[in-house]
Amino acid sequence: MGHSERLVEVWRGDVLESQHHGHAVICNAKGDIVDGWGDPDQVILPRSSAKMLQALPLVESGAADAAGLTTEQLALSCASHQGAAIHTDRVTRWLSDMGLGNDDLLCGPQMPDDRETRTELIKADASPCRIHNNCSGKHAGFLTLSRHLGGGADYVDLDHPVQQAVKAAFEEITGETSPGFGIDGCSAPNFAATLAGMGRAMGAFAGAKPGGDTRQRAAVRLREAMMLHPDLVAGETRACTELMRAAKGKVALKTGAEAFFVAILPEQELGVALKIMDGAERASECAIATILVSLGVLDADDPMVKKRMNPVVKSRAGQDAGEIRPSAALLRA
Amino acid sequence: MGHSERLVEVWRGDVLESQHHGHAVICNAKGDIVDGWGDPDQVILPRSSAKMLQALPLVESGAADAAGLTTEQLALSCASHQGAAIHTDRVTRWLSDMGLGNDDLLCGPQMPDDRETRTELIKADASPCRIHNNCSGKHAGFLTLSRHLGGGADYVDLDHPVQQAVKAAFEEITGETSPGFGIDGCSAPNFAATLAGMGRAMGAFAGAKPGGDTRQRAAVRLREAMMLHPDLVAGETRACTELMRAAKGKVALKTGAEAFFVAILPEQELGVALKIMDGAERASECAIATILVSLGVLDADDPMVKKRMNPVVKSRAGQDAGEIRPSAALLRA
Repeated sequence: MGHSERLVEVWRGDVLESQHHGHAVICNAKGDIVDGWGDPDQVILPRSSAKMLQALPLVESGAADAAGLTTEQLALSCASHQGAAIHTDRVTRWLSDMGLGNDDLLCGPQMPDDRETRTELIKADASPCRIHNNCSGKHAGFLTLSRHLGGGADYVDLDHPVQQAVKAAFEEITGETSPGFGIDGCSAPNFAATLAGMGRAMGAFAGAKPGGDTRQRAAVRLREAMMLHPDLVAGETRACTELMRAAKGKVALKTGAEAFFVAILPEQELGVALKIMDGAERASECAIATILVSLGVLDADDPMVKKRMNPVVKSRAGQDAGEIRPSAALLRA
Repeated sequence: MGHSERLVEVWRGDVLESQHHGHAVICNAKGDIVDGWGDPDQVILPRSSAKMLQALPLVESGAADAAGLTTEQLALSCASHQGAAIHTDRVTRWLSDMGLGNDDLLCGPQMPDDRETRTELIKADASPCRIHNNCSGKHAGFLTLSRHLGGGADYVDLDHPVQQAVKAAFEEITGETSPGFGIDGCSAPNFAATLAGMGRAMGAFAGAKPGGDTRQRAAVRLREAMMLHPDLVAGETRACTELMRAAKGKVALKTGAEAFFVAILPEQELGVALKIMDGAERASECAIATILVSLGVLDADDPMVKKRMNPVVKSRAGQDAGEIRPSAALLRA
């Protein structure tokens, strides 16, 4: 990877115990980089931060309207949810409205992150199903698009019309030919881009207008759906949900595995993309919160923000033992 | 931190998705660095990798023999166990033999990593207790030493005779004045050192002879106890346990939080200490396994070794999606 910058520090007592390096860009609606850290040309996998891009063909093709999808369903199509009842009930109903069910999803099963649901499963000696997978909303969106396009059952295949449509939209909005892909945790292709490409895509989402072209109108609907339903995009206690609530409609936020994070700021017409090179979520959450504070859409004193930007490290007996904090380089934002 | 080297890579498809940098040293019995990566002067917190050092006064003072401690108890005093019955039963009996119990431990409670025990607790709506804390064996050792020294109940206080004895042993065997300390997850002070200091300590443990002085005899007893009881030092499925078994008595191994790892190789009279700067366990496990393969005490083809050194990254549906692997720099070991 190119030259990265130290973005996040983990202190225990007076000792800098661990640290996280990464890359970040802030882009305007035209795709220009207006600020950044590290190397914008770094090739990355956006993982679940690409979900809004993967949902563009669902809206642009007319599939979403033909199926009468609500803003809740659009939010779920962009979600990495935690398998709580508010998520799985809606995905189950969505599939059933199409005459489909759990077995039509091609993502694997995943133990839900939602504590209550997980505890229920453990107590019942039950295994999680595919609907619990954090990507099941995205997959329900893929199935909706596949039906609209007349595609086959293997909608995660790279050559399937769904994935070809996703790839085309991804390359158009990032402004790049994708240099490759990886198989995501949910079995779908995840297209690579440069960090600048993902920043450009977020800038385009931020600058999109309700009266714009098909692409812009789709981008507006997706970002609005996410901000309307922060609880469906992730879930209680999760960063995307809590920080979107704290920003009160000023930002749409999406994390991705291995410490990717993106943000869309429609009022400023700015997009943010960042990657912590070691894949640590504690660091990507601190970094995105810090950048959003510097851009004026989050308040550093809000407990929901402080818990991500500057959390206390505690012993198991509850004593304060240290803290996670943004580096000086990140704070100059 | 000083200049670190890329030690571990995380690949997904053809994309280098994440990477881990760190520092490592290999020291001989005299404390000379015979090989290394990154900066040996890096100040680190060894966390639970310091447990053998913290147990030295227990043995050297005569407290262990006065209490009739077995090799199992010495292994537990160096353990980060996962709260399985084999661990908690022995710690409970050890405390009870002293007329003490759970409430005399000053570590906080911890949900056990052992899956069966954790599932039992969840099913019973029960909370974990202090005996489940991964450090409860170390704390039982502290209590044994405290009684021998006539110390008070607050044995984790920096000025308590137990911690003063630990600090003296720590500084002697690392050959350094400790530059500070942090409060560990278990509430005890964790003394800082340079990476070279921890390597020096491991070299001393490796070169210690059964016929040597008090320090050497204590070091031999502790490393032998660990290698005799790999299941008590960590537990089933854990790296320390599985890699010690795979090494068949040729290495004593101990991980620490935030991606610290140490190894003692008595036959070669070599010690290893390493720190992954971002704190990722997947990387410290890959790095220690790789170094031990290069030193000839582990076989790269052993499934228990491959699972740490070169694990497959899978989708939730079980497809191969990528791999974790040592960097070229680490492989030149």
